[in-house]
Amino acid sequence: MQIALCQLNFKIADFEGNTTKIISAIKQAKSKNAVLAVFSEFAVCGYPPLDMLENKDFIDKCEKAVNQISEHCHQIAAIIGTPVINTNESGKKLFNSAVFIEKGKVKSIHCKSLLPSYDVFDEYRYFEPNKLWQIADYKNERIAITICEDLWVNQPVENSFTRQKLYTCSPMDELLKFSPTLMINIASSPFSFNHSGSRKTVLCENAKKYKLPLIYVNQVGANTELIFDGGSMAINATGKVFSELPYFEESVRLIDTSTTSAEIQKNEMPAIEKIYKAIILGIHDYFNKTGFNKAVLGLSGGIDSALVLVLAVKALGKENVHALLMPSRYSSQHSVTDALMLTSNLGVTYDLISIEPAFTNFETSLVPIFAGKATDITEENIQARIRGTLLMAYSNKFGNILLNTSNKSEMAVGYGTLYGDMAGGLSVIGDLYKTQVYQLANYINSHGEIIPRNIIIKAPSAELRPNQKDSDSLPKYDILDKILFAYIEQKTPLEEIVELGFDKQVVEKVIRLVNANEYKRFQTAPVLRISSKAFGFGRRMPLVAKY
Amino acid sequence: MQIALCQLNFKIADFEGNTTKIISAIKQAKSKNAVLAVFSEFAVCGYPPLDMLENKDFIDKCEKAVNQISEHCHQIAAIIGTPVINTNESGKKLFNSAVFIEKGKVKSIHCKSLLPSYDVFDEYRYFEPNKLWQIADYKNERIAITICEDLWVNQPVENSFTRQKLYTCSPMDELLKFSPTLMINIASSPFSFNHSGSRKTVLCENAKKYKLPLIYVNQVGANTELIFDGGSMAINATGKVFSELPYFEESVRLIDTSTTSAEIQKNEMPAIEKIYKAIILGIHDYFNKTGFNKAVLGLSGGIDSALVLVLAVKALGKENVHALLMPSRYSSQHSVTDALMLTSNLGVTYDLISIEPAFTNFETSLVPIFAGKATDITEENIQARIRGTLLMAYSNKFGNILLNTSNKSEMAVGYGTLYGDMAGGLSVIGDLYKTQVYQLANYINSHGEIIPRNIIIKAPSAELRPNQKDSDSLPKYDILDKILFAYIEQKTPLEEIVELGFDKQVVEKVIRLVNANEYKRFQTAPVLRISSKAFGFGRRMPLVAKY
Repeated sequence: MQIALCQLNFKIADFEGNTTKIISAIKQAKSKNAVLAVFSEFAVCGYPPLDMLENKDFIDKCEKAVNQISEHCHQIAAIIGTPVINTNESGKKLFNSAVFIEKGKVKSIHCKSLLPSYDVFDEYRYFEPNKLWQIADYKNERIAITICEDLWVNQPVENSFTRQKLYTCSPMDELLKFSPTLMINIASSPFSFNHSGSRKTVLCENAKKYKLPLIYVNQVGANTELIFDGGSMAINATGKVFSELPYFEESVRLIDTSTTSAEIQKNEMPAIEKIYKAIILGIHDYFNKTGFNKAVLGLSGGIDSALVLVLAVKALGKENVHALLMPSRYSSQHSVTDALMLTSNLGVTYDLISIEPAFTNFETSLVPIFAGKATDITEENIQARIRGTLLMAYSNKFGNILLNTSNKSEMAVGYGTLYGDMAGGLSVIGDLYKTQVYQLANYINSHGEIIPRNIIIKAPSAELRPNQKDSDSLPKYDILDKILFAYIEQKTPLEEIVELGFDKQVVEKVIRLVNANEYKRFQTAPVLRISSKAFGFGRRMPLVAKY
Repeated sequence: MQIALCQLNFKIADFEGNTTKIISAIKQAKSKNAVLAVFSEFAVCGYPPLDMLENKDFIDKCEKAVNQISEHCHQIAAIIGTPVINTNESGKKLFNSAVFIEKGKVKSIHCKSLLPSYDVFDEYRYFEPNKLWQIADYKNERIAITICEDLWVNQPVENSFTRQKLYTCSPMDELLKFSPTLMINIASSPFSFNHSGSRKTVLCENAKKYKLPLIYVNQVGANTELIFDGGSMAINATGKVFSELPYFEESVRLIDTSTTSAEIQKNEMPAIEKIYKAIILGIHDYFNKTGFNKAVLGLSGGIDSALVLVLAVKALGKENVHALLMPSRYSSQHSVTDALMLTSNLGVTYDLISIEPAFTNFETSLVPIFAGKATDITEENIQARIRGTLLMAYSNKFGNILLNTSNKSEMAVGYGTLYGDMAGGLSVIGDLYKTQVYQLANYINSHGEIIPRNIIIKAPSAELRPNQKDSDSLPKYDILDKILFAYIEQKTPLEEIVELGFDKQVVEKVIRLVNANEYKRFQTAPVLRISSKAFGFGRRMPLVAKY
């Protein structure tokens, strides 16, 4: 059977845009003699629509979109993800569904059974789990249609406990009773660099276990924090991938289930390249889907803002990115010259504006109130907030969205000023530890120096007091990041982190800092998620607690 | 049977503090000849611990606390809420449980079946629903123990759809098969002024339906946004409340199930008084539980900051609250005099610091960049951000937490400056519409003028440009708030709001503003929740979407 895998980029609630895109792909598939077009989970409305699902109006529009699409399904069938109303007397109001459309009509509805409710996922908030099993008969194939998590029966419980199976039911075991000949799984599975291998493994294991070919269609594109990487694939009944769609871009590809061992199209990419492409897609879609096209950022001469500038230029074009250089009395000369060299390498416009007059002014104004008090972190934060104010003024006046340049290590330990350098509409590298920031900078420079070498090799400093270095108050980043990874990603208790070979006092300090700064992270911009545990929606810690 | 209802204020993860409190209540109950002490849901660890539940260490500490408490349960039994590990092969790792402790040991574990996963609740993120039913036999009583939502079988689906039952199972119908003689429900049910009546109704209906007395013990105290109001109660088998514990304070009270019609202790309180007490408790616990005791806020001479100042003084004491008056060239004279009169009425300290020099300075600094551009909202935002910077400088220097003074109406339509007047560690009145702000101000003044009358009667203005009034850019607050309530709380679609009798263009504008400002609310402080739909964790909207 000729099947078109339609890996598309959808915008949440853009019914007109999404429907047009879907219909166009169906026409394209039909013109190439495909008999079935498969789209991702929640194709009609985009994923994740969150509490928009609670509006009746939203669900009505999904239904209308499905009807409109159905009119184009003659001589071709389609499988499309959409929310569907639960008409039972009790339970959550919706199902997360795949509709099978044939001869201009919805022929059957297949609902998701395993509803991820962990990390960034809250599907149980909206959906009733499916308990009714059925198969789609079509052109001599008996298709077992499942949705994303349905094939992740062996998803381990995500915590530091002894591991057990997360789910009590196996959708494919149920569907096997109907003697299927083909499995189709539609997904909206976001990218994370430390999980991207396991997806392929899980899918291949399913094909092998059930001895059935498996078609997998994933969403591509970013919706706020979540970056969907695509990488849809077709796997034969022995568990071998025979066609793999590209990562991070739209693609419609025909595969033939009867000639599964013919041409093998593979899709390998090193983790760092995936991270690079993921972030660029994340920036691009944030702007494109909100209707903005220009960005501004503060360029300090340090590695973080340099990296963000390069990524922004790649995502938006050099003509759409503006840099503000805002030196103070504590800025070293190389900060300005390094930053200027980068703007020149990239060809972006910039303004240079000293914060010295404003800083002096604040100091003077506060003399009567601060009388007799020693200089401390207050004065450092004032400098950062003056910069935040200037950046937001630029943003307000010219309509450029401010890009935040904080990295995950500093967000973790609270090494940043709320409303100062923590300001911005989108956190670009907030899910990259400092050591990953260096890796990505080196990757960018691997085909020629874009980021001036001096920016990469100099010792990190916030330059908010004389001769300040990050290492004055924090452990070295290669140590810090390992401790943070163990604590945040792996939820390893303090004692066990110490047993890994770290100094007890250092570990205690790091954990204390992470806990004490939940309130700062609570108020930061959405963070482009590239790991399996980013700050933000997927990590929910009480602000008021005994830590 | 003599039962002690122990309505206590727990701090999340404060195992030592919570355990000490529980043991002390057990001793007190025993000394008064109670044979059973009942504590709220998650008494050992506080509710809601959120992702702390994913740490094995946290669960171990809960278990230890239960063991420690058990040692004090001789000649008295106890029912206590705690997370318990699910030892089955599959499913979520934890149960939300009530342990029944007798003779120094946990005798039985009763787990929650109905797991709220809507609004601020995400219980399915952590817990497996219970499917095993059992009863606690104790001193000639057969006790059906349930947890909070378990009695809310008729919880309607929370959205604008046709209503249906949310749950597919009824725990009490199952437990009825064991012929219970008494129902006990332990809860951590947060306050919302528009739901506080329905709680009592639901509980009384349960007692009536099952013809059994019902003991209900709720948590009291605030944990970040959520304010638990207590109001524990004992209801007889005919569905009449015969003892009701106070709202918003700790209380341990003995009731006798055999003399249920004796003295009736009622607990009526008007909604506005509940809101007043709720917010004061919210502020108090935020400070007390984080170990801070001093607050600072910007006092503009307007109603919002005036109200927050009164509430803060009530919660923290006048000696712990400091006001900053920060007039600009656009501030009217009455703004300063009204603000000063309020500080004098309350006896709080203040500093007056003009933002004029800083504002002029920013304007001058930006001339080369803004050359030729007209004055617009940018300059308004700069003023607000200078104030934010000064307030945070005060906060940093003296350790006072900045209280945010935004109300729900302005947060809804984005009438506020991110990193300016939207700054702060805690949003005190962010869940009060402007019309409720006036109601609460009038309530406070009902026994004598605390808030100067001029602050209440003058037309609201941000005073960020000459002669500015809120009504220049927004509909009148009595209209605006009704539209907002319909859209936000009731999820009414645009057309239906218009049908309620509002101007179509006005409704369209308001809805457009609400949608366009999701990004601002994403970055604001936690909001003390007093309604059934507050901004923040309980309302999750995509930032990038077509609205």
